[in-house]
Amino acid sequence: MATPAGRADVNHAWRLASRPQGRAMESNFEWVETRVPEIREGQILVRVVYLSLDPTNRVWMEPMDTYMPMLQIGAVMRGGTLGVVEMSRNPGFVPGDFVQGLGGWQEFYAGDATGWRKLQRVPAVPLTAYFGAMAHIGFTAYFGVLDIAKPRPGETFVVSAAAGAVGSIAGQIAKIAGCRVVGIAGSDEKCSWITRDLGFDAAINYKKENLRDALNRECPNGIDIDFENVGGGILDAVLERINIGARVVICGLISQYNATGPVPGPSNFSSVLLKRARVQGFIVLDYAPRFPEAAAQIVQWLTEKRLKYRIDMVAGLRSAPSALNKLFDGTNTGKLLVKVSEEPA
Amino acid sequence: MATPAGRADVNHAWRLASRPQGRAMESNFEWVETRVPEIREGQILVRVVYLSLDPTNRVWMEPMDTYMPMLQIGAVMRGGTLGVVEMSRNPGFVPGDFVQGLGGWQEFYAGDATGWRKLQRVPAVPLTAYFGAMAHIGFTAYFGVLDIAKPRPGETFVVSAAAGAVGSIAGQIAKIAGCRVVGIAGSDEKCSWITRDLGFDAAINYKKENLRDALNRECPNGIDIDFENVGGGILDAVLERINIGARVVICGLISQYNATGPVPGPSNFSSVLLKRARVQGFIVLDYAPRFPEAAAQIVQWLTEKRLKYRIDMVAGLRSAPSALNKLFDGTNTGKLLVKVSEEPA
Repeated sequence: MATPAGRADVNHAWRLASRPQGRAMESNFEWVETRVPEIREGQILVRVVYLSLDPTNRVWMEPMDTYMPMLQIGAVMRGGTLGVVEMSRNPGFVPGDFVQGLGGWQEFYAGDATGWRKLQRVPAVPLTAYFGAMAHIGFTAYFGVLDIAKPRPGETFVVSAAAGAVGSIAGQIAKIAGCRVVGIAGSDEKCSWITRDLGFDAAINYKKENLRDALNRECPNGIDIDFENVGGGILDAVLERINIGARVVICGLISQYNATGPVPGPSNFSSVLLKRARVQGFIVLDYAPRFPEAAAQIVQWLTEKRLKYRIDMVAGLRSAPSALNKLFDGTNTGKLLVKVSEEPA
Repeated sequence: MATPAGRADVNHAWRLASRPQGRAMESNFEWVETRVPEIREGQILVRVVYLSLDPTNRVWMEPMDTYMPMLQIGAVMRGGTLGVVEMSRNPGFVPGDFVQGLGGWQEFYAGDATGWRKLQRVPAVPLTAYFGAMAHIGFTAYFGVLDIAKPRPGETFVVSAAAGAVGSIAGQIAKIAGCRVVGIAGSDEKCSWITRDLGFDAAINYKKENLRDALNRECPNGIDIDFENVGGGILDAVLERINIGARVVICGLISQYNATGPVPGPSNFSSVLLKRARVQGFIVLDYAPRFPEAAAQIVQWLTEKRLKYRIDMVAGLRSAPSALNKLFDGTNTGKLLVKVSEEPA
């Protein structure tokens, strides 16, 4: 293909080479260099600027269909990307458009435009926000809190992985809804960030103190809503303290994504019966028709500074496999992104 | 007190003597004989005709508050009863009234009228029905199916303990709602009853065949609704096969009521997330304001013969402790009642 000035005709990509046992290793991926293919009628060529790393990426590596089809060995690793259209043979896109879609772990996406959408950029909002608060992350928090949990003012709202991308926004939305918000996180720095900068009412460093004791202290009126990102022992402890009519929003179960065998279910499950609790899982993609509603509300909160977020930026696609495990180590602070190429000026 | 003709002034009762370890034994109860006390202003004296035995009775024996206050050692065992008012110093009741309330495991209840209600008897409906389809059993099935599960025609509805008091009615209501209904029960006789007499589409004898294989066979389109009375391995198997948007109604978890230690939670819990399932516990007492609605609908179905039920009658209050375990052995067929005294002519 012709190589216009400033564009490369070489693509680098991480392909799925093997299924991980436990955590994903760099050896589960293969780094390949290929030519950028010609695009056909209806297709687009996108230069990836940012790649999103999310806990669910690990789920996609499993040998099974989930809420998405199973990823085949040898395929480019699936990933959410934000980029710029370089060439278009699709009437919906022109070169220069900022777009978002499942471009994968690669420098250039060349293919059908299915699932890609143009960003409606708001001047004051940085591009990276379109991968956090203004994208699936923010939408997950928005629908999980407002549509699934349905908080009422004065209720106690607990969120795990509270300094994570989704958790930090979920807690802020619950504050806007008038809840007492208690965050569970894994370091004093994270706890300090969510209480001082984000306005959470309390934070619990579960690595430093007994979670049950801390929940008793910080939730004197019990727990009305649990926004669950972690599962495992954290969910067990929360279920001990839920109130009648509690809602347990299952947003993620990161504690078990690296499991190599059957995972025990939540103990204290009988609380669901005795407390007439509603435990509800959700996947944000189901809300796609309502993304514009969420985007409009979130951009308003961002411009009013009622919603804050943090980006943890990793340089270079080459780092993606190792960076993924920051999510499972808890060493990322805020939304984890890989910078694949420069933002257009 | 004066002893009117046909009434006794002696009461027999089972008191809670100790907390069970595992299943309840007769030695956990104490058989006592006392005088029937005088009733005071506002109180009623009820001769118990039928005592209801339900899985939740075992929960009430635990040393903790549940959805009811903890039962104290030495107190008359708590139980749902149906009886006849013998004396009344309460303006809401007159002798001869058929009444229902928590009279306990005893021959005579003498006390406050709080929580007691008069039966609105319908001529064609036998008195025992007011302990099954026309009472908490039927109401549990009614609200669990119609209010929590919200079935749509053509959906696949699975119910465990399907030949039990609640399960058998829940399945029939789901049939009325247009579902494919698959019952899980523990004997061929039970399976035959629910398919031939009650009109279930299929039945699985989980003691005779592999439950996973059978669910695959009988639920070719997956499971949309699970009406769960059992929990444990049955819930595990069901969760493997739920569809997107499934509803798991937690009506009971009888498999764990006799547990002496922590109970493992449901495995395959990640299905709740991946399938965006709603797992919801409920307690029928929360629906008390809507009992008249349920009663009106159920009496109509009963008179139209669209709803059938079976009574498993045990003779004599003396048998109550041993009879309770029929529920956990699965040896009862239909609603388990103890006949404490004769129905009035």
